[in-house]
Amino acid sequence: MKAVVFDNGLKLDNDYPMPQPKDGEALIKVNTIGICNTDYEITKGYMGYKGILGHEFTGVVEKASDKSLIGKRVVGEINCGCGNCEWCAQGLERHCFNRSTLGIWKREGCFAEYVALPEKNLLVIPDNVTDNEAVFVEPLAAALEILEQIHIPPYKKVIVLGDGKLGIITALALNACDLDVTLVGKHEEKLSLAKAQGVKTKLLNDLKIEKKYDFVVEATGSITGFETSLALTKPRGVLVLKSTIAASKEINLAPVVIDEITILGSRCGQFAPAMRMLESKRIDVNPLISDIFPIDKSIEAFERNKEKSSVKVLVKVD
Amino acid sequence: MKAVVFDNGLKLDNDYPMPQPKDGEALIKVNTIGICNTDYEITKGYMGYKGILGHEFTGVVEKASDKSLIGKRVVGEINCGCGNCEWCAQGLERHCFNRSTLGIWKREGCFAEYVALPEKNLLVIPDNVTDNEAVFVEPLAAALEILEQIHIPPYKKVIVLGDGKLGIITALALNACDLDVTLVGKHEEKLSLAKAQGVKTKLLNDLKIEKKYDFVVEATGSITGFETSLALTKPRGVLVLKSTIAASKEINLAPVVIDEITILGSRCGQFAPAMRMLESKRIDVNPLISDIFPIDKSIEAFERNKEKSSVKVLVKVD
Repeated sequence: MKAVVFDNGLKLDNDYPMPQPKDGEALIKVNTIGICNTDYEITKGYMGYKGILGHEFTGVVEKASDKSLIGKRVVGEINCGCGNCEWCAQGLERHCFNRSTLGIWKREGCFAEYVALPEKNLLVIPDNVTDNEAVFVEPLAAALEILEQIHIPPYKKVIVLGDGKLGIITALALNACDLDVTLVGKHEEKLSLAKAQGVKTKLLNDLKIEKKYDFVVEATGSITGFETSLALTKPRGVLVLKSTIAASKEINLAPVVIDEITILGSRCGQFAPAMRMLESKRIDVNPLISDIFPIDKSIEAFERNKEKSSVKVLVKVD
Repeated sequence: MKAVVFDNGLKLDNDYPMPQPKDGEALIKVNTIGICNTDYEITKGYMGYKGILGHEFTGVVEKASDKSLIGKRVVGEINCGCGNCEWCAQGLERHCFNRSTLGIWKREGCFAEYVALPEKNLLVIPDNVTDNEAVFVEPLAAALEILEQIHIPPYKKVIVLGDGKLGIITALALNACDLDVTLVGKHEEKLSLAKAQGVKTKLLNDLKIEKKYDFVVEATGSITGFETSLALTKPRGVLVLKSTIAASKEINLAPVVIDEITILGSRCGQFAPAMRMLESKRIDVNPLISDIFPIDKSIEAFERNKEKSSVKVLVKVD
């Protein structure tokens, strides 16, 4: 089958072996794939992952022991747990010490014609949600994860720093929950995507850097973004680290202690609330799609993803 | 008056000007002073502070507009707020943007024969608490601050890393609140001070470094201590940063995101709960006193404080 594989270099392999579903796993014919910045980080060495990339997809179930799934359009939770630990028991497979993670850790990804995943990871896509919309479930779940972790009172000020795909989706998601959200970034045209759906926006250059925000979401993925986030967080406020900052840098932690800041790492979220948000049309992710490429042009899709002007790049499998 | 002053070098000045209490401030004749590692950090440049050192003291009120205070033994909250902002309104003067902090920031410290502080900052020492005990109120309040900030359920595992004064006091304080606390350090004789009061202890070398602690308190003040703390924190666990780590170092924040760790900066606390703990004798701080020096030997007291074998060094004013 066709598959986009990272093994030192990134390449499109036209003859990659088909996935062999294990007990309890379904075989899914992939339809739509989303490129995430984590994919790009992996091509720079993040997690030391090698194999098929990709963890955002929609597809149709071809084989499953649960016959009711066959033929259904699905998305899939990317973390696969052992099923026997305290994390799995809580539905937090993402923290299982023996987990694999689709296209990131010990499990071949979805950037291919077919993917295998445990049936229990699958969520059927409602009829009124398109594939192009449903492929946003994973990043949208990651955005909503913040609200799984902490309570943000609606009268508190939230700032989301970074107008990349994760920043925009996070701002849209929190705004859709009636929070007081301002998205800050460097690109007027990207900010406008959030502004069109009611999010307050501000160019970074126009933002006065002062410690006045109760909640700051770091979604730039850069160390300078982290430093700016810290400078915006009010004493006793919360800085949500939403993007994995792969690089190390000198960080002075004294201000965290002096201002009694909470730094909250935040990663994957539950799919159901995210799908609910898409189904109810409380947010529209379609304007975030910058480009759609066929799988044969996946390398170009990755190049397009790297351009500052792109937000979400999708890839379609015939 | 005699005063221990930092201005590039550390010196004992025998003829330093007396403090001039402002409106609402009391003049206190100092009796006992505690040396904190923050004092030591200041002598290395922390906060850029110059002037009289010291923020842990007991004394007797000599002048005050509230006549009922005169002659009373007191301790004093070290942060002085503007009195007009949201922080002061909450009793959180420690976060007032216009605050001064005794011997740390914009306010002469208590390492002298006399000190001036707002009357509202003073807390009268109960008769059954000695000066040597009451001088521990400030660090004990800082330890209990953790419980002002977060809820630690009693069935969760807490580890306190660092057997310096702050680590020992923190372990004693949390243990006295019936939490499941283990103090980890490098010095058997220091650990034994906590062990004698019922705290579980472990030598760092004997500790298996694994992500199994729900709450980890970093009280080593070193970057390696921070890294070890992170390696001990369970996914979705809380790493409490209790000591100001003045140095910067390369830190990789990716594990914070992947394991969804909360890093909680924690500084000063309210004095009243700490005094209550001393008054009720739920902990005994006396065994933590390594040495007592007269003020004339303050420089030696600072040297003693630097020695690994010391815990708390006190200084007495005649």
